[in-house]
Amino acid sequence: MKQVNVGMVGYKFMGKAHSHAYRDLSMFFPQTLKPVMKAICGRDRAGVEKAAAQFGWESWTTDWRELATRDDIDLIDINGPSDVHKQIALAAAQAGKHIFCEKPLALSLEDAREMLAAAEAAGVKHMIGFNYRFSPAVRLVRKLIEEGRLGKIYHFRGQYLQDWIADPEFPLVWRLQKEIAGSGAHGDLNAHLIDLARYLVGEMTEVVGMSETFVRERPLPGSAAGLSAKGGADSARGPVTVDDATLFLARFEGGALGSFEATRFAPGHRSTNAFEINGSRGSVKFDFERMNELQVYFTDDAADVQGFRRVLATDPAHAYSEAWWPPGHTIGYEHTFIHEVVELMEAIENDRQPVPNFMDGVKCQEVLEAVDRSIEERRWVRIDEL
Amino acid sequence: MKQVNVGMVGYKFMGKAHSHAYRDLSMFFPQTLKPVMKAICGRDRAGVEKAAAQFGWESWTTDWRELATRDDIDLIDINGPSDVHKQIALAAAQAGKHIFCEKPLALSLEDAREMLAAAEAAGVKHMIGFNYRFSPAVRLVRKLIEEGRLGKIYHFRGQYLQDWIADPEFPLVWRLQKEIAGSGAHGDLNAHLIDLARYLVGEMTEVVGMSETFVRERPLPGSAAGLSAKGGADSARGPVTVDDATLFLARFEGGALGSFEATRFAPGHRSTNAFEINGSRGSVKFDFERMNELQVYFTDDAADVQGFRRVLATDPAHAYSEAWWPPGHTIGYEHTFIHEVVELMEAIENDRQPVPNFMDGVKCQEVLEAVDRSIEERRWVRIDEL
Amino acid sequence: MKQVNVGMVGYKFMGKAHSHAYRDLSMFFPQTLKPVMKAICGRDRAGVEKAAAQFGWESWTTDWRELATRDDIDLIDINGPSDVHKQIALAAAQAGKHIFCEKPLALSLEDAREMLAAAEAAGVKHMIGFNYRFSPAVRLVRKLIEEGRLGKIYHFRGQYLQDWIADPEFPLVWRLQKEIAGSGAHGDLNAHLIDLARYLVGEMTEVVGMSETFVRERPLPGSAAGLSAKGGADSARGPVTVDDATLFLARFEGGALGSFEATRFAPGHRSTNAFEINGSRGSVKFDFERMNELQVYFTDDAADVQGFRRVLATDPAHAYSEAWWPPGHTIGYEHTFIHEVVELMEAIENDRQPVPNFMDGVKCQEVLEAVDRSIEERRWVRIDEL
Amino acid sequence: MKQVNVGMVGYKFMGKAHSHAYRDLSMFFPQTLKPVMKAICGRDRAGVEKAAAQFGWESWTTDWRELATRDDIDLIDINGPSDVHKQIALAAAQAGKHIFCEKPLALSLEDAREMLAAAEAAGVKHMIGFNYRFSPAVRLVRKLIEEGRLGKIYHFRGQYLQDWIADPEFPLVWRLQKEIAGSGAHGDLNAHLIDLARYLVGEMTEVVGMSETFVRERPLPGSAAGLSAKGGADSARGPVTVDDATLFLARFEGGALGSFEATRFAPGHRSTNAFEINGSRGSVKFDFERMNELQVYFTDDAADVQGFRRVLATDPAHAYSEAWWPPGHTIGYEHTFIHEVVELMEAIENDRQPVPNFMDGVKCQEVLEAVDRSIEERRWVRIDEL
Repeated sequence: MKQVNVGMVGYKFMGKAHSHAYRDLSMFFPQTLKPVMKAICGRDRAGVEKAAAQFGWESWTTDWRELATRDDIDLIDINGPSDVHKQIALAAAQAGKHIFCEKPLALSLEDAREMLAAAEAAGVKHMIGFNYRFSPAVRLVRKLIEEGRLGKIYHFRGQYLQDWIADPEFPLVWRLQKEIAGSGAHGDLNAHLIDLARYLVGEMTEVVGMSETFVRERPLPGSAAGLSAKGGADSARGPVTVDDATLFLARFEGGALGSFEATRFAPGHRSTNAFEINGSRGSVKFDFERMNELQVYFTDDAADVQGFRRVLATDPAHAYSEAWWPPGHTIGYEHTFIHEVVELMEAIENDRQPVPNFMDGVKCQEVLEAVDRSIEERRWVRIDEL
Repeated sequence: MKQVNVGMVGYKFMGKAHSHAYRDLSMFFPQTLKPVMKAICGRDRAGVEKAAAQFGWESWTTDWRELATRDDIDLIDINGPSDVHKQIALAAAQAGKHIFCEKPLALSLEDAREMLAAAEAAGVKHMIGFNYRFSPAVRLVRKLIEEGRLGKIYHFRGQYLQDWIADPEFPLVWRLQKEIAGSGAHGDLNAHLIDLARYLVGEMTEVVGMSETFVRERPLPGSAAGLSAKGGADSARGPVTVDDATLFLARFEGGALGSFEATRFAPGHRSTNAFEINGSRGSVKFDFERMNELQVYFTDDAADVQGFRRVLATDPAHAYSEAWWPPGHTIGYEHTFIHEVVELMEAIENDRQPVPNFMDGVKCQEVLEAVDRSIEERRWVRIDEL
Repeated sequence: MKQVNVGMVGYKFMGKAHSHAYRDLSMFFPQTLKPVMKAICGRDRAGVEKAAAQFGWESWTTDWRELATRDDIDLIDINGPSDVHKQIALAAAQAGKHIFCEKPLALSLEDAREMLAAAEAAGVKHMIGFNYRFSPAVRLVRKLIEEGRLGKIYHFRGQYLQDWIADPEFPLVWRLQKEIAGSGAHGDLNAHLIDLARYLVGEMTEVVGMSETFVRERPLPGSAAGLSAKGGADSARGPVTVDDATLFLARFEGGALGSFEATRFAPGHRSTNAFEINGSRGSVKFDFERMNELQVYFTDDAADVQGFRRVLATDPAHAYSEAWWPPGHTIGYEHTFIHEVVELMEAIENDRQPVPNFMDGVKCQEVLEAVDRSIEERRWVRIDEL
Repeated sequence: MKQVNVGMVGYKFMGKAHSHAYRDLSMFFPQTLKPVMKAICGRDRAGVEKAAAQFGWESWTTDWRELATRDDIDLIDINGPSDVHKQIALAAAQAGKHIFCEKPLALSLEDAREMLAAAEAAGVKHMIGFNYRFSPAVRLVRKLIEEGRLGKIYHFRGQYLQDWIADPEFPLVWRLQKEIAGSGAHGDLNAHLIDLARYLVGEMTEVVGMSETFVRERPLPGSAAGLSAKGGADSARGPVTVDDATLFLARFEGGALGSFEATRFAPGHRSTNAFEINGSRGSVKFDFERMNELQVYFTDDAADVQGFRRVLATDPAHAYSEAWWPPGHTIGYEHTFIHEVVELMEAIENDRQPVPNFMDGVKCQEVLEAVDRSIEERRWVRIDEL
């Protein structure tokens, strides 16, 4: 079996999810190329050493430049904070490595475009981590639309609702600092919705948006892990420099109307990544908190039994499902990453670009920035203005 | 328009529901016979007088014998406590009146059979108040089964769960006294499930059951209304003489298996009257707390979109719905009684027996008593033993 | 008991709902003033005569001017097409009659303001028919917010989704003609959402919107009833002159962000009138298709049992519920109208303005028109510009 | 870190689930003993060799006797067909190996008792694979009950509904043959419900049951995997010798009533492993198809906001959850096995018996057989009769 040697930068929330994907891949998808977990990289020596041992990496380093140029590495996986994506990606491309980069691709559209250009120039495979595309239920939506079973699309309605910072005393973690995270709910959550909308409905032409930072000052952080964190011992505070919530309206090329909302101030919603699509022949509803399910409605069902069907996307008819458990035995969040890596391995094996790739990262960034400009200038902004 | 003059015995929870049905009928079903609310009867003079005024009855009386023999009455509606059903029904039959009796028909199978015989001998119309049959969603189940769209039936699974007496300090209302109510959860709630099972799946052949009275002594009641009540001022207590919960298993003539459970000790369930039916071609699920909805599954749906559909039974394709509001605009509990009276009026007009009638009351009582005997003798009891 | 003599203009969908409310009121709310159904008015002689008989009105007329000035009428109920509201309301006010007008108050903000001024000048009671406020579950939201149990409000997210015209062959009924209906989904559906948002969260300060007419030409209608209709025999077509869908974003005075969407092109949604509100201490979710239910979340629930509660608003603790059935026995769409009339009768009895009244109609119209202007001028519009 | 060397017998559905648990354990639970995947065993040389490579076992064999006595093996994991459990377990015990055995422990109560006695005599750790106990939501139920937050338990209501053999043409796989599987829906599915009931509510004292085989003859199988299979090329058929559905009623020591139903003939239910528990202070509802959720109701919630809460058991307050992803990011079926192995490793490390162990297997078998006897003798059977 052919192998792909992986070097990874990042070892926290996303680093764990990616590591697990590499670790589990060949057990469930034995027919694909086998990723080999060669080396993991992070800034904190103790942290990365511990992660390497725990996640199963052969080695570790604190020097990403060394990693990006090692001869025995085929693929660089970048999942550290958003502000380091660009420089690592450029170095990896220059070294001829394939690249798998977490979203957002970069802190700005300009940077994203530069990364895409570099990867294209280097002729390497490039992938971006929009993992929600890889839910079997989302794949089913794509299939239904491609086969015309929803007809002409009228509406995309996306909501990504969380509540992890609704408490004003939640500390000022890096995700709330513009210089590191680039953006708040908008770049973190709307980015996923935008990608799903593009994947399923197509490109947007214009947008108008609104955003708000409800809590403008927070305690400096003590410790943090995943999306959890605790305030530090003293009472120092700092300014929140990203948005707590961003909403926008959009028009799609095909004539559909879009509504997008991302917020971290929706108590009760731990991670509601939900969308609905209405077409002339049917509708679908998805909520990642019930990721194994898709609600599907068809206008041509018999008149007395019309209604949204709760489809459990765990049947052999559903993407990826035969690799897992019998119908009705559900999968979880981490599986989307395994499916991502399936796509990445298949793309490398077949010498094609994976989907989604840096072009999708750029196009997502275009919409994000059009919304930002719309908010700043209080007007509709066309995507092609950028 | 032809009219049917109604005399009604009972003026509390069921009296209100029946009164409203007569009152509203001709507004929504103008094509049927028009019931005229001639007289209402109850034991408490002040109570019945007030009810007559509030509900819109032309007159009132405390003497049901006088009511049952009045020349200007065509139909006697009996919805007082269960222990008075029989004598009134017999008198009404003797006087040649049509009879609409609330369930349970009587306190015993023997009494129920006597009532049926009397009504048949008198040649009058007789109806029993199994109102849940008249939910549009339940009608849809019947239609699907009759048209073979669920195939051969394998399972009926019924649960009627309430919580109004789960508090041990809830007082000893008449529904908890065997000499008046005849039975507890079994006669009150399983009776409805049994009727639905018979209506939808067919007759049962044998049963085995279990029952329990969790709280055996309660405060004597002060005041009561509907299913609400308060304890009296003093600390007097009395014994609960009916079952708090009764469960049983059953076999149906057609080979299906049945599971029935009635309890008043299920906190969180105000009135979950729910059933599921599984057949070779599909399944349905119903819960009266969402009475406008039916969950429907078909085995022959396309392989990638199989799932229970949430059908909102408010479309023109659904029984009774065109008399009401546009699709999606729901109806409530009281509408089942209006639909009952539609059936009653149509039966009188067309000189046929309404469905369900006293025969259904008798057959329901047979199952109830077979379960009782099964509990007493700790064995399976065949329905035809009775 | 004191009485209020009612004269009503309109006899179709809303006429039926209002008639039923008057008819049932005193049975369930015997303590309020008793409305007397004196006369009903409509343009079509046969239609109004039939409606009078069916709904239970004492008399009928085709001349609303005569009705509006009759000495024996205390209250004029206006529920005909939107284009006739104004002239009838002005005449009624001039004649010193109380007025109950369906929404939208008028076809324009200017007209709405004129109606309010006339009613105020005449010193009569004026009410507008935003019936969804009168769902017990919506009343519960109001109570939770007033008591501070949701904390500071961050988000209002409203969606009114229907599908009755999603079929391009659905005919060109009056609701699709601007000169009669004034507006499409926006005026019909967003009006309800706006009213709910104002009732629960407060006034909006600025809006930006988007709208679309997906199907621009439709068959001329043959017959229509409620929201159902059939095309005429010939193939004639006419232009749709209202919006099929309108979405907008808004800011509230208190700092909350609003998202509104109204569409008639959402297959599978017969009438999803839904909203969610997020506050610093909790959230609520409501969907009129399950109108008896409210989803409620509190941030201060114990850490291991946090989650949205499905509250069935049929308990004694819930508004209006004690007038109806025992807990768990649900009510339907029509009950919102009965509760509206309770408010109207109580306001007349206590010599105060009912809520919502024409001022609410004007304020709703302000938002509707600000959105229209925003769409036309492709920019944010402040409400106080109007 | 200390290690536990594992030898496993079985390599199909359960073998895959167990392998994955060993493989992933130390990544998510690094503090526990580390299982080392030494050798896997199966009857089919090609199959087991492929499984060894795919799942990550160091070696493979077709001789379980050799495996059970190898010096370098600490733990024998038995998950082949039920008819081989006993002999392997006895050999492993004799060799002083710890044993992890899938349910059912054996084909008969007598065998199960013999296995328990052997394991106890040998002083080894013994565990049985009732994996559903290890869902965080189920752990939460246990916690609520132990802390008295549900009060005195009145009802346990369990349903395990599947539909994988509802099609009469589904072939005669080993799970439908009594000599291999021992039992059908009863031993396969009710076993899980019984274990959950025992874990949560306590021991049962008596039962009465009913069972049925709806389809008595099926095509001989061609190929099978997991719960999927295809018929062979020819038309040969054979008899189904196990139950398609088994239902029973039960009484618990503490006074609660139990209702159990297992069926493979419930179209639309891929794998509904669901139960509800009602107590004097609250209720819970669980459905494994939504395994991350628990519905929880408390009687002492404020009167106006009582309702079942949908708790997403992915918060730090929930068992095992901190090892996984941020709140709202769900886990799946396979995680229950990882949690099982956590318990097994912790028990070995701390020199205590894991829970559940062979005693739980025996007690589950007692109930299963009491039900069987009840069905055969058509009467209530006390557990202590066995």
